[in-house]
Amino acid sequence: MRGLAPCLLSASLACAPFGAPAQAQLPADPLAGAQVVDLTHALDERAIFWPTADKFRLDTVAAGRTDKGYYYAANNFCTAEHGGTHLDAPIHFAEGRWTTDQIPLERLIGRAVVVDVTSQVSADRDYQVGIRDFEDWERRHGRIEHDSLVLIRTGYARHWPDAQAYLGTVERGAAAVAKLHFPGLDSAAAGWLVQARKVKAVGIDTASIDHGQSTLFETHRTLSAQNVPALENLAHLERLPPRGATVLALPMKIAGGSGGPVRVIALVPGDR
Amino acid sequence: MRGLAPCLLSASLACAPFGAPAQAQLPADPLAGAQVVDLTHALDERAIFWPTADKFRLDTVAAGRTDKGYYYAANNFCTAEHGGTHLDAPIHFAEGRWTTDQIPLERLIGRAVVVDVTSQVSADRDYQVGIRDFEDWERRHGRIEHDSLVLIRTGYARHWPDAQAYLGTVERGAAAVAKLHFPGLDSAAAGWLVQARKVKAVGIDTASIDHGQSTLFETHRTLSAQNVPALENLAHLERLPPRGATVLALPMKIAGGSGGPVRVIALVPGDR
Repeated sequence: MRGLAPCLLSASLACAPFGAPAQAQLPADPLAGAQVVDLTHALDERAIFWPTADKFRLDTVAAGRTDKGYYYAANNFCTAEHGGTHLDAPIHFAEGRWTTDQIPLERLIGRAVVVDVTSQVSADRDYQVGIRDFEDWERRHGRIEHDSLVLIRTGYARHWPDAQAYLGTVERGAAAVAKLHFPGLDSAAAGWLVQARKVKAVGIDTASIDHGQSTLFETHRTLSAQNVPALENLAHLERLPPRGATVLALPMKIAGGSGGPVRVIALVPGDR
Repeated sequence: MRGLAPCLLSASLACAPFGAPAQAQLPADPLAGAQVVDLTHALDERAIFWPTADKFRLDTVAAGRTDKGYYYAANNFCTAEHGGTHLDAPIHFAEGRWTTDQIPLERLIGRAVVVDVTSQVSADRDYQVGIRDFEDWERRHGRIEHDSLVLIRTGYARHWPDAQAYLGTVERGAAAVAKLHFPGLDSAAAGWLVQARKVKAVGIDTASIDHGQSTLFETHRTLSAQNVPALENLAHLERLPPRGATVLALPMKIAGGSGGPVRVIALVPGDR
């Protein structure tokens, strides 16, 4: 990032007497010195979904001039919760854990740790990111602090929306699941992140936090059991420094949801 | 809040040499000293939608133990874009203006100005917030700065999800629209906010930025024409100070959307 990373964002407070015009003490623009990076793929009919999941569909209700003379546009849409850039709520793989609307938003806002495994993945499309990868990262960048959001950069976002390259297959339906090939997070490493590093959440730029060839989804189950949300199909992780960015993942507030669409952004210190 | 408002959030930067473990220079928790306030109603089958719009519907795909022995839950959902706590993209009422995915996120992040009109509304359920209300606010709190997000607090969020109290009618369909009664923003005041105060966006805790008895939606048209997004059905504005909070409104990234579900939060300086 312009050779300055990791530049670090911190917050300070200044207080003014209540009720008085506070023009002089107005806060600086909260974005001052920070660049907003959108880590979200747009949802359209090409957005990648699990082979067994209903894809996103937008239906036009209105788009044109009304009989009263003004323009009006509106749509309906239908979608599975788990497609495009989306959240996995803990209940997705653990009964009784948080649903989408129950996750405290503080768990989805915090310091981003970005772990680049693109070179490992280029040698093995079924690569599972292990504890050793995180230990290597810590040797270069310092310890992963408690309450971090760990984002795994496999480089797969560059394939979006090419399902053949991204998922390993363009086929749909239950039989296609065995043909999925993409990297993921090893379940022992997931447990390590939760237990030894007490991370808030884990994100990845592939279709699943478990690698494509997983059949028992142990990484999902490990995170869900500990009430740790996951973020999948992230975009543009290459625009983040290894540390120093702040990430905010704000999901659609689906009551009782097992996940759902999420808008994920990072605030990266530096010129806009 | 707690007698200290308006406490003001500002940002500062500290930079460390690139590549070195930067433990000592780590940023403070970006939430330190800030309370996260969720301004979003949960979406369920009771969530309030326009009388002519399809309501939110969640369909269970799975919720239970699989034949492989692990728990799994997933859902599909369908909804109109304009219901629950949602965004109006400028194209909603102005041809060629920004769709949901095209709105620069910087336009949806910034300083919150909260204008309380609950007493005016208690005397007139069809009240339209006027330029005078904003001028009164400025006399007490100082000028509305450029790039503010202006949030109008009518107090109607307390009725949610009671449609009779919130909309003025529980009836659905085209004939029900004439029976809508709730306060809104006057179109001349909308023009003033955009032209004289150059606000980024406008939000309200009712079903529409135009008051319920509107037939030509001049406030929507005024904002849309100027590429100014609107936020509707906001919750918990009573938890914000008149100024000093930072608001972030992150919409579901619907390609070509005229609006859609949005998660809106405020960061309020003060103890968590």
